[in-house]
Amino acid sequence: MKKIYLGIIGFGNIGSAVAGTIKKNRNSILESTGIDLQIKKVCDLRPKRTPFPFSRNPYEIINDPEISVVVEATGTVNPALQFVLAALAKGKHVVTPNKELIAKQMSRLLSAAQENEVELRFEGAVGGGIPIIQSLRESLAANTISEIYGIVNGTTNYILTHMANEKMDFNQALSQAKLKGYTEPDPTSDIKGYDASYKAAILAAVAFQAKVDLKKVYCEGIVNITQEDIQYTSEIGYAIKLLAITKRAGKEIEVRVHPALVPKSHPLASVSENYNAIYVKGEPVGELMFYGQGAGGGPTASAIISDILQIANSKLKIQNSKLRNYRLKKIDEIEGRYYIRLQAPDKFGVLAGIAKAFAQKKVSIAAVNQKETVGNLATIVILVHNTKEKDLRAALNIISKLPVVRKVCNLIRII
Amino acid sequence: MKKIYLGIIGFGNIGSAVAGTIKKNRNSILESTGIDLQIKKVCDLRPKRTPFPFSRNPYEIINDPEISVVVEATGTVNPALQFVLAALAKGKHVVTPNKELIAKQMSRLLSAAQENEVELRFEGAVGGGIPIIQSLRESLAANTISEIYGIVNGTTNYILTHMANEKMDFNQALSQAKLKGYTEPDPTSDIKGYDASYKAAILAAVAFQAKVDLKKVYCEGIVNITQEDIQYTSEIGYAIKLLAITKRAGKEIEVRVHPALVPKSHPLASVSENYNAIYVKGEPVGELMFYGQGAGGGPTASAIISDILQIANSKLKIQNSKLRNYRLKKIDEIEGRYYIRLQAPDKFGVLAGIAKAFAQKKVSIAAVNQKETVGNLATIVILVHNTKEKDLRAALNIISKLPVVRKVCNLIRII
Repeated sequence: MKKIYLGIIGFGNIGSAVAGTIKKNRNSILESTGIDLQIKKVCDLRPKRTPFPFSRNPYEIINDPEISVVVEATGTVNPALQFVLAALAKGKHVVTPNKELIAKQMSRLLSAAQENEVELRFEGAVGGGIPIIQSLRESLAANTISEIYGIVNGTTNYILTHMANEKMDFNQALSQAKLKGYTEPDPTSDIKGYDASYKAAILAAVAFQAKVDLKKVYCEGIVNITQEDIQYTSEIGYAIKLLAITKRAGKEIEVRVHPALVPKSHPLASVSENYNAIYVKGEPVGELMFYGQGAGGGPTASAIISDILQIANSKLKIQNSKLRNYRLKKIDEIEGRYYIRLQAPDKFGVLAGIAKAFAQKKVSIAAVNQKETVGNLATIVILVHNTKEKDLRAALNIISKLPVVRKVCNLIRII
Repeated sequence: MKKIYLGIIGFGNIGSAVAGTIKKNRNSILESTGIDLQIKKVCDLRPKRTPFPFSRNPYEIINDPEISVVVEATGTVNPALQFVLAALAKGKHVVTPNKELIAKQMSRLLSAAQENEVELRFEGAVGGGIPIIQSLRESLAANTISEIYGIVNGTTNYILTHMANEKMDFNQALSQAKLKGYTEPDPTSDIKGYDASYKAAILAAVAFQAKVDLKKVYCEGIVNITQEDIQYTSEIGYAIKLLAITKRAGKEIEVRVHPALVPKSHPLASVSENYNAIYVKGEPVGELMFYGQGAGGGPTASAIISDILQIANSKLKIQNSKLRNYRLKKIDEIEGRYYIRLQAPDKFGVLAGIAKAFAQKKVSIAAVNQKETVGNLATIVILVHNTKEKDLRAALNIISKLPVVRKVCNLIRII
């Protein structure tokens, strides 16, 4: 039996779920792992009613020599960064589900952990209770990972699911997500894809040991996805999902967040409501997908306690502090297939003009579908074969200026 | 850096995939884990061409003092049992993907491992490359697991997928699975559910520390599933999947294998082709699902090497040798919802007779659908509300003897 004393800084939804789960399952955890988890102190800026010793001063935890693992659950970047650095400097292992902090400060925090010969773990930062970080680091350590596609934001997945199933528009679905309590008070970070970009950066760091400059990560949210896009793509066999994508080929990586057309036969397509799922391709394991609740106190507590138990059970330091520099592909350098929706007056010569522009930039059309005309505007949906995004954008630039075209309404990448 | 010398007993598809993967990814494994894997000897009864030192005598591996981890990949129960016991007795850790051996001899093997203070690991025994064993043992250690539903046999999932998508009958789909190389030379163990029952027993042991007597595990394969069943259940929103099920409530567990109706909205329903997926429900994590290739050299090698790395990296012995006795529920004690298909001459009084028999045994009908009459026989599909299987079977016993009923064709449980 090994006793581990814990301190929890930040006692909101997640901190109290960690404490509650440890209190409830302490005996079964001890029995199955040989590790006895003891919460020595919890801390929050606001006074909280709790059966655990409580303080409003986080340094009572950070400076306590008996506490060996600190759980950071403040939900902030500042002062969380100061608390985590101080705890690491005091030789304490730190566990945090703080995706924004980890994505923005990973190199610095991992170096600090290494200097002080302690661990920094963050299973709860991606996919809530889904054990994706440990799986990538340990269970899949024999593999060369080539690509990861993640539905890592429950709010946007809920919105897209209800836009598809109930033919709601974006704002209706967002309101419903708010009513269900699936959004932050300010949903900007979710719907603009920032939250997913933190997770994409973390996945790239864990899978490829990549040092990712978050400011260079292409990030496009779901605010431009319309009911028309969802219907037209569904008709041809696709679901629209907001994906956090990271891929590696040699010294180059891709890290990006944007809506994507996912074939309905792909396992990610049927991930609905506010669930998360992370699809991983590796050699020799092939395709894997991990599915579960990506947020909430319970799932996140499961991940945090798992991290604590791993720290207690690990012999070698995980050598994750040596992040490498890859060349990050710019968004116009990527290659893929695309869906384009545009509006044009229902006139002779529209398709000819569009086809000519595509041909000029060597973009090959895979399918064209002219939808019913509303007023005097026809909607035209085009799928193109594999092409460089740069060439596609050049073609669309020409097309948007054609007199026979009113507007290029949307461009969505296809996985 | 830590050097681990390995011996591989059994050098077929899986053994050679392990060796090939280690050879290919040795440097990246060393870099990411600090562990240097070195294959010291491989062994097979038949001579093999290989760049690794080869022997036809497994005891050259078992008795080699430098080898600390033995990979058993013979695909047999005997002599695998002797090899594994001998290796454990010599103080060697053993990694095996041998589901039949583990399911049948788990208690004995775990005791032998504990006596000799070594580990026995078997990630590859369930779900191929899917890290389900490690996730249950470690990542989910904070949770109380209540139920697991697994699609753990790729052959039968392939057959059911093609019966559903291409309206093939069972034998056609089986032939196609054979052509694709997805079956064993004798497919009995797959299609009768034996293979899945080994995995159900292992999942129960890992999730609940349950000692499972394999002979008492209810096991029903897919040979009685007809095209009609698939069509009728699809119409009302279900897919038919062969599931390995284990549940726990207090001191009672369920461990069983049978086809089941899975609502199309359930994440297991869209697991198609020869893929595997394991759905887990726990508190506080909620619902999780793990998806991937459940068989094949590459995925299994990924799991085996992961086990080897865990052994090299683990501080505390995993206390998994103390399997507990639970009361295993008999199949007629389980409760659930059911689909029943029966045939009756298209006569007045059929439904009245059936309804009376159900009422007599307190089985409540949820839906009835009388299909078109073929010849003079009508097919009637019935769904019943939650009921004890014992009561349902008693009712069906009465119904099958009614003069207005020709035959109770099938009964399928609904999850």
